[in-house]
Amino acid sequence: MLLGSIEAGGTKFVCAVGNINYQIQDSVHIPTTTPEETLQKCIEFFDQYKDDLSAIGIASFGPIEIRKSSPKYGYITNTPKKGWADTDFVGPLKKHFNIPIAWTTDVNGSAYGEYVLSTLFNKRINSLVYYTIGTGCGAGAVIDGKFVGELGHPEMGHIRLKRHPDDLDFKGICPFHGDCLEGLVSGPTFEARTGKKGKDVPLTDHVWDIMAYYVAQAALDATLMFRPGQIIFGGGVVSEEFLKKVRREFKKLLNDYVDVGDVDEYITMPLAKNNGSATIGDFALALKAATE
Amino acid sequence: MLLGSIEAGGTKFVCAVGNINYQIQDSVHIPTTTPEETLQKCIEFFDQYKDDLSAIGIASFGPIEIRKSSPKYGYITNTPKKGWADTDFVGPLKKHFNIPIAWTTDVNGSAYGEYVLSTLFNKRINSLVYYTIGTGCGAGAVIDGKFVGELGHPEMGHIRLKRHPDDLDFKGICPFHGDCLEGLVSGPTFEARTGKKGKDVPLTDHVWDIMAYYVAQAALDATLMFRPGQIIFGGGVVSEEFLKKVRREFKKLLNDYVDVGDVDEYITMPLAKNNGSATIGDFALALKAATE
Ligand SMILES: Nc1ncnc2c1ncn2[C@@H]1O[C@H](COP(=O)(O)OP(=O)(O)O)[C@@H](O)[C@H]1O
Ligand SMILES: Nc1ncnc2c1ncn2[C@@H]1O[C@H](COP(=O)(O)OP(=O)(O)O)[C@@H](O)[C@H]1O
Ligand SMILES: [Zn+2]
Ligand SMILES: [Zn+2]
Repeated sequence: MLLGSIEAGGTKFVCAVGNINYQIQDSVHIPTTTPEETLQKCIEFFDQYKDDLSAIGIASFGPIEIRKSSPKYGYITNTPKKGWADTDFVGPLKKHFNIPIAWTTDVNGSAYGEYVLSTLFNKRINSLVYYTIGTGCGAGAVIDGKFVGELGHPEMGHIRLKRHPDDLDFKGICPFHGDCLEGLVSGPTFEARTGKKGKDVPLTDHVWDIMAYYVAQAALDATLMFRPGQIIFGGGVVSEEFLKKVRREFKKLLNDYVDVGDVDEYITMPLAKNNGSATIGDFALALKAATE
Repeated sequence: MLLGSIEAGGTKFVCAVGNINYQIQDSVHIPTTTPEETLQKCIEFFDQYKDDLSAIGIASFGPIEIRKSSPKYGYITNTPKKGWADTDFVGPLKKHFNIPIAWTTDVNGSAYGEYVLSTLFNKRINSLVYYTIGTGCGAGAVIDGKFVGELGHPEMGHIRLKRHPDDLDFKGICPFHGDCLEGLVSGPTFEARTGKKGKDVPLTDHVWDIMAYYVAQAALDATLMFRPGQIIFGGGVVSEEFLKKVRREFKKLLNDYVDVGDVDEYITMPLAKNNGSATIGDFALALKAATE
C-alpha cells in the first residue's frame, strides 16, 4: 500500500509517494505553470505507482473550496494567481485514479503533519496552530485532531494587529487589507520597509523587533482563541533566533494572563525538517481517507 | 427527569431546573457573596428537586480549570473577584448530589445554548462564536458541536486590536493589558472615555463608531480563525442598532476576502431572550452528561 502527497504551491508542486510509516519512496518537483500542464505532470508521476496507490492527500495554496456540500468542492477558487482561479483540482485526479482523495490547504496540511509527528515522536499534542511566514503568511489549525471551519478554511494571515509605535508610517503590503498580519510580516515586507531582502537584514536591525512584536500578536491571538497545546512557525522568514525575540514579546503581551507552560516548548519551529510537515500531513490524511 | 442549571456570575447566580425540552420549571436568583454561602444556597435550591434531578450544567465566571487531568478540575482559579480565587465549585455539588455535572465558562454556556437553539428552531449551525460585551468582555466557541481548548478555555476578550485613529489617546481599562478588546469596548469604557454611562451616550455619538470598529475586529478575528457559521453578540452594551454599525465596519474590514453569506444573518443578537442562552446551554450540557 502506497500513499500519495501533493504539496501544491504557487511556484512549485511537490509530489511524493510514501509507505504507511510516512517514509518517502519517491518524489518530484513540478514547476507551477498552467493548471492543465501541472496537473497532467502530477498524474504522470503517480501513474508509475498506480497499482499500489491507495489514496492521495493534497495540501494546496488557496483559497480553496472545502465544503463537501458545494458543487465547487475540490476547486481552487478566487486566487489572484494567474490562470488558477476556479480550477478543479480534485476532480481530474479522482477521475483518473478513482481512489480516495483528501483535500485541504497547504497550512492545514503542515499543521496536520506536525500533529501526527507529535503523536509519533513527541508528547501528544491534540490541538496546534501552524503559521507560515514566507512569500505570504497564513496558518492552519488542528483542534482535537480535526480541522476547523464551517464556511471555509481559516484565513489567519489577514487578522488586524495593534501597530508598533515605531512602524506607524508603514502602510503594509496586503493588496486586500494593507496592514493585516500578512501585510506587515510576510517576506516581501523587508524589501518594502528597508529596500533589502530579508536575508540581508541582520537580526540586530530594529525591523526584526517590529516583526517580532507582530508575530507575537499572531501567537497571542491563536492562544486566546484556540488555547492550543503548541504554536509552530515555519517559512523562510522564521529562524530559531527570530523566535527568541517572538517569545519575549509574546510573554510581555500575554502578561501571565493564561498559562501556556514552558514558552520554549509552546512556540517552536516545525519538527519536520526542510519544510517536510505538509508531506507527512498529506500521507496521514491519505491513510485516513483510505481506511475510513 | 429534571435538569439543573447554574449560571454563575460575579454579581448573581441564577439556578434553574428544567425538563428535557429545556423548559424552566423553577428558578432562583442568588446574590454572589462568599463561596460557602452562595454554593450552600445553590444546594438548598436543588435539594427541593433531588429525587428527579439527573444532572447539573454549570456556566461559570472565570478563569476556571476545565482540564479533567488537573487536580483543580472544577475550580474557579485566579479570579480577581474577592474571596473566589482557588474555589472548588464542582466538588461540593458532586459530593452532595452524586450526579453528573457539566462544567464550562459562562460564555461557553451561552454559545452552547445558541448552538442548541439553532438546531431546534433555526437552520442548523455547527460552529458559532458568542461574544458578550457587558461589565467585561469575553467569548465562547462551539466548533463542530464541541468546545475548544487544550490548555484551558478561550480568553478572546483579551486580544489586541488595530487602534481607531480617533481613539489613539485612550489607554484602555484592562488591568492586565490596557487596550485589549475588553479594555477598549466593555461597558465601563463609556465612563472612562466620556464620563457618562453607556446607556446615556446616544448612538449618534462618535464613540459608538469607535466601539463598532473594535467590535467588528473581534468579529473579523473570529471569522478568520474559526470560519464559524455565525457570530452572536450579547451583553448590556449590545443592541440591534449598534450591530448595524458593527456589520458596516466588518464588511469594510473583511473587504470580501472570504464569504460569510448574508452578514445580517451572520452577525446577530442571541436567539434566546433575556440573556437566557446560558440556561439552555446548561440544560443541554446536563442532558448530555446524564445520558453519556
Ligand atoms: N533569512 C531570511 N530572513 C528573512 N526573510 C527571508 C529569509 N530567507 C528567505 N526569506 C524570505 O522568505 C520568503 C520566501 O519564503 P519561503 O517560505 O521560502 O517560500 P514560499 O512562501 O514562497 O513557499 C521570501 O520573501 C524571502 O525573501
Ligand atoms: N444601553 C446601553 N448602552 C451601553 N452600555 C450599556 C447599556 N446598558 C448597559 N450598559 C453597560 O453594560 C454593562 C453591564 O452589562 P450586562 O451584560 O448587563 O451585565 P454583566 O456583564 O455584569 O453581566 C455596564 O457597564 C453598563 O453600563
Ligand atoms: Zn490581508
Ligand atoms: Zn485584557
